[in-house]
Amino acid sequence: GLSAPKKPCKELSYEARADLPGVHPMAAQLLRLMEEKRSNLCLSADVSRAEELLQLAEELGPLICVLKTHVDILEDFSVQVANSLKDLAIKHNFLIFEDRKFADIGNTVKHQYEGGLYRIASWAHMVNAHAVPGPGVVHGLRAVGKALERGCLLIAQMSSRGSLATGGYTQEVVKMAEDNSDFVFGFICGSRISDKPGFVHMTPGVQLQSGGDGMGQQYSCPGEVIGTKGCDVIIVGRGILAASDKVAAAEEYRKAGWEAYLKRLS
Amino acid sequence: GLSAPKKPCKELSYEARADLPGVHPMAAQLLRLMEEKRSNLCLSADVSRAEELLQLAEELGPLICVLKTHVDILEDFSVQVANSLKDLAIKHNFLIFEDRKFADIGNTVKHQYEGGLYRIASWAHMVNAHAVPGPGVVHGLRAVGKALERGCLLIAQMSSRGSLATGGYTQEVVKMAEDNSDFVFGFICGSRISDKPGFVHMTPGVQLQSGGDGMGQQYSCPGEVIGTKGCDVIIVGRGILAASDKVAAAEEYRKAGWEAYLKRLS
Repeated sequence: GLSAPKKPCKELSYEARADLPGVHPMAAQLLRLMEEKRSNLCLSADVSRAEELLQLAEELGPLICVLKTHVDILEDFSVQVANSLKDLAIKHNFLIFEDRKFADIGNTVKHQYEGGLYRIASWAHMVNAHAVPGPGVVHGLRAVGKALERGCLLIAQMSSRGSLATGGYTQEVVKMAEDNSDFVFGFICGSRISDKPGFVHMTPGVQLQSGGDGMGQQYSCPGEVIGTKGCDVIIVGRGILAASDKVAAAEEYRKAGWEAYLKRLS
Repeated sequence: GLSAPKKPCKELSYEARADLPGVHPMAAQLLRLMEEKRSNLCLSADVSRAEELLQLAEELGPLICVLKTHVDILEDFSVQVANSLKDLAIKHNFLIFEDRKFADIGNTVKHQYEGGLYRIASWAHMVNAHAVPGPGVVHGLRAVGKALERGCLLIAQMSSRGSLATGGYTQEVVKMAEDNSDFVFGFICGSRISDKPGFVHMTPGVQLQSGGDGMGQQYSCPGEVIGTKGCDVIIVGRGILAASDKVAAAEEYRKAGWEAYLKRLS
């Protein structure tokens, strides 16, 4: 007959994906440094003091591919802090991801991204956005970030209980990303939602122990996220920050994430 | 026969709604001051300098029920600015609404609301949130705001083109508000979505001229929003801010909104 058995999609390495034609420069840079550093670990550095943030970046920088910040929970942010963070990102070869979750109309997010006290666009390599306002949110961010060679992740799924980012909502997010792939290079999600290898899938709510936080957060483990779910980057916060030895904990997550990736390739 | 013609719901005044048993204190306060000031106008004070913000609050304060801020687009925010804003809110009897659009998991929004450079909970009477993270976003905000007698609006619909806050999403938001009515007192929406008279419906994207901004924003006029759509508060930004005489423009919007309300009652 004419029908041959379907060959399963070959799983590409991070490096091979970085080399694909047309891949977003931010995705290429990230995938390449992941391969170099053998790390698909993003540290969620949710601390309230700048000194602590910079110390985390200095100590854990060599183990991570991305440092995720919530600049608006720092009590003592300043331009100096942003500059120190940029220096540490170069020194340790990681990217800075401000987890701002932009979620307003285009004209507003443009100002929130570029201006205010934080001037996020001036120091964060990547930001993320909710798709709920419609494509204008991406157009607003792109108006500021594209010329600076920044990139944006769209939030397609969330790790919190009862999230409305499911089903048709998630599909709309994927479509919005595909329609705006000159600025959107990936997703915040819990599973692989696009087969386009240029999109990076980053997953929050990762811990070695599963469970929750009593405020709706739900955890998955690295092997599940990278292996079963087919995502690319594990985002770990409290699993590392609450450890007595943060470097050892980060190394444990890096190893778990990387081994799950190697297993997926094999 | 047994079936009598359905009597249309009697339209309650703002004041009558404020007096209903069990109404959220923030809703009651807002509805009462709207009746006193004969204003259902919220000014969207999207400016980048504190001096300009405070001048708007001083000049237009007497004409508005709510001043809506985007504190994160101010280049020169300080505690002093927040304090001046609070003083002006008392002087001119309006409420401060920080349009932060919280949209993260409970544990994160708690810190974003309470801490950082902005300490939003310490000066904003009300904030808003997207429902996309699930109910944890409200629980996180409530953990900070309830004791301070603050209130929260959930974003049920948006004025921007292609918004995903429609249909089933909007219904889920209404349910989340009803489940959390000790802290949620209303909605950001384009039409009346709950018949519970304790909920305040506030509508952005209002201009006397209809149209858009080239970045997805779409405008409705006051008569349509208050009359046809049955909302309570018109949120006006560029229609006033871009006018050569802002006080005259604000008065025009106040009058249009109030007359639409009186017509609805009659």
